[in-house]
Amino acid sequence: MLKKIAILGSTGSIGTQALDVIGNAPDKFKVMLLTAGNNVDLLINQALKFKPEAVAIENKSLYPALKTALGATNIKLFAGAEEIAAIVRQIDADIVIGAIVGYAGLKPVMAAMEAGKTVALANKETLVVAGAIIKELAQKTGSTIIPVDSEHSAIFQCLVGEDNKTVEKITLTASGGPFQNLTLEQLKNVKPADALKHPNWNMGRKVTIDSGTLMNKGFEIIEAKWLFDLDPGQIDVVIHPQSIIHSFVHFHDGSVKAQLGIPDMRTPILYALGYPERLLSPLPRVDFAKIGKFTFFEPDLTRFRNLQLAQNALKDGGNSPCILNAANEIAVNAFLDGKIGFLQMTDVVEYALENIPYLGTPSLESLEESDITAREKALYKIDTF
Amino acid sequence: MLKKIAILGSTGSIGTQALDVIGNAPDKFKVMLLTAGNNVDLLINQALKFKPEAVAIENKSLYPALKTALGATNIKLFAGAEEIAAIVRQIDADIVIGAIVGYAGLKPVMAAMEAGKTVALANKETLVVAGAIIKELAQKTGSTIIPVDSEHSAIFQCLVGEDNKTVEKITLTASGGPFQNLTLEQLKNVKPADALKHPNWNMGRKVTIDSGTLMNKGFEIIEAKWLFDLDPGQIDVVIHPQSIIHSFVHFHDGSVKAQLGIPDMRTPILYALGYPERLLSPLPRVDFAKIGKFTFFEPDLTRFRNLQLAQNALKDGGNSPCILNAANEIAVNAFLDGKIGFLQMTDVVEYALENIPYLGTPSLESLEESDITAREKALYKIDTF
Repeated sequence: MLKKIAILGSTGSIGTQALDVIGNAPDKFKVMLLTAGNNVDLLINQALKFKPEAVAIENKSLYPALKTALGATNIKLFAGAEEIAAIVRQIDADIVIGAIVGYAGLKPVMAAMEAGKTVALANKETLVVAGAIIKELAQKTGSTIIPVDSEHSAIFQCLVGEDNKTVEKITLTASGGPFQNLTLEQLKNVKPADALKHPNWNMGRKVTIDSGTLMNKGFEIIEAKWLFDLDPGQIDVVIHPQSIIHSFVHFHDGSVKAQLGIPDMRTPILYALGYPERLLSPLPRVDFAKIGKFTFFEPDLTRFRNLQLAQNALKDGGNSPCILNAANEIAVNAFLDGKIGFLQMTDVVEYALENIPYLGTPSLESLEESDITAREKALYKIDTF
Repeated sequence: MLKKIAILGSTGSIGTQALDVIGNAPDKFKVMLLTAGNNVDLLINQALKFKPEAVAIENKSLYPALKTALGATNIKLFAGAEEIAAIVRQIDADIVIGAIVGYAGLKPVMAAMEAGKTVALANKETLVVAGAIIKELAQKTGSTIIPVDSEHSAIFQCLVGEDNKTVEKITLTASGGPFQNLTLEQLKNVKPADALKHPNWNMGRKVTIDSGTLMNKGFEIIEAKWLFDLDPGQIDVVIHPQSIIHSFVHFHDGSVKAQLGIPDMRTPILYALGYPERLLSPLPRVDFAKIGKFTFFEPDLTRFRNLQLAQNALKDGGNSPCILNAANEIAVNAFLDGKIGFLQMTDVVEYALENIPYLGTPSLESLEESDITAREKALYKIDTF
């Protein structure tokens, strides 16, 4: 039986890799829905190739282009955030892949969960910003989340067949990005072009920058709390530059389990789509003797202060992770635009965290306010440099 | 509810470590039976401490000592191989630990399996010598085997919750023993005292020598075939000198799972006794950042020819693994007695393999014959040096 798949954000890094996985297994999957923000040309090409039931573009001004290209097909066409939320609720899908980058990914994922659907979650902000609300929603509707991030997929896989009550802690591995050996002075002068060259992973621009600053790992420890119901003290990070071990679970009997593989997002995507089955992959396999060695070291929280800010936000909870995320989104854009330096991204995030009142149990509405305020504070701070 | 445990070979390395594990969890386990070969003093001490229902000594001449020390207690006393087999069948035990070293461990384990009992298997020879027969016996009586060896325990743990049909291959890790950096010329001059110093593991004498020659790993690939129902081509070996990763399972979706921990046999023993539960362990935990690195390299089959002989025996099947094991037992004893050199152990095993007719599907009786003939051939070869 074909598994029916909806992809939110099909033209981004995870979306295109998910379609690659699906294209390799046409006897396993059928695409039902594709959505994109602005990349209408790629969306049209994907629609013509995968023949989904429906296609949606968030930017309404691009609807005419969609109509012109796909009007003669059977594919139903939609535009705008509201129509996307509606079709996500209605579409007959076994799995909805949440692959929209940034805060914009939150609402469509919530729409899928409100309809009780299983979500393969790649969008980090969903759990970073609104973990408590998402958790409650999942319990209410019976929706389940399968992580797509390689680290969380690793932990999810290590927990298969295990009793979660026997988990002592988890260790997320971090490649450390391209700058682990730079001094603070050198980090100051890192340029966007340098930061966009990740040594191991093929990812989108935003995630690649976040990987270089360790903010990506900061988001992941917050996500892990919600995905696996852990206390902040049960989550730590180790730098593992080879990116072969994707994470560890430590059990209370002294045993540790790890999941490993070549660094290729298509492996955790395939796992999430196939779960609970493991499907045959055409990708190359890992060869330990050829790799020769795995190294590990503690993250340096003085050079990579983002991770410290994220650890604090994890402990504080409330609206702190939301502020962390929003200010970081603005900071990364400013860095990519050449407006601020590499280390100044952290200063921007810290400024926002320090200048917005803490809320312990924020509603979705007050999170939206925190999000907007954090962006304003971040822009203000950027303007002072 | 207390789990009732019988230990075959309670005075050896695995037996004493199992009692240490049990002693740490008196609310989980109750010892029902202890057996030993010759170490009657330690057996008496263990009996007085753990108060089992029954105690047995294989060497009948030591029965009077047992009687004198324990005659006034409620503990039932037995002596000799036949009485041991009988009491193993009768004893009310949830798990029988098979911890007798060498060929002598086969029959008592078979007795436990004939009675349909669950066996926590540490004795390698059971599956190396008689894998096909043991497998058939398990199917007939419904007896199950839980591996105690750290490598097989690792694989067993990685397979929890997984579908065995999705396993592509397994990789057994090997510490490589103390001699990985020696040349052939240097290996020639290795003395028993050097070979008995294992860098990582606290094990018995026989297993420690086999670890230095890689014969131990050779036995493990043969055991793995039977434990996990694999083809010879699905089992490989990588040298991992830190002994932290205990083995890998490669799935057909490109994912690999590993189980890790400090090198301490009490961890897999606890797992086997607690299974399917993971029980809290008092042992130290592993710290990856402190370890710093894991290394891996291919085993060198020209310096460590035992592994090649074992790979051949794995492929050939039949009585070859039985011959491999029997000749090796004689060779290791001769090496420990100073009669032959380190590399000559391999020559002895090779000679036996080459000079005993191959049997494709031997009965237990013909395996016994192969065992005896292999010992004779080994002794003959040793005499020629």
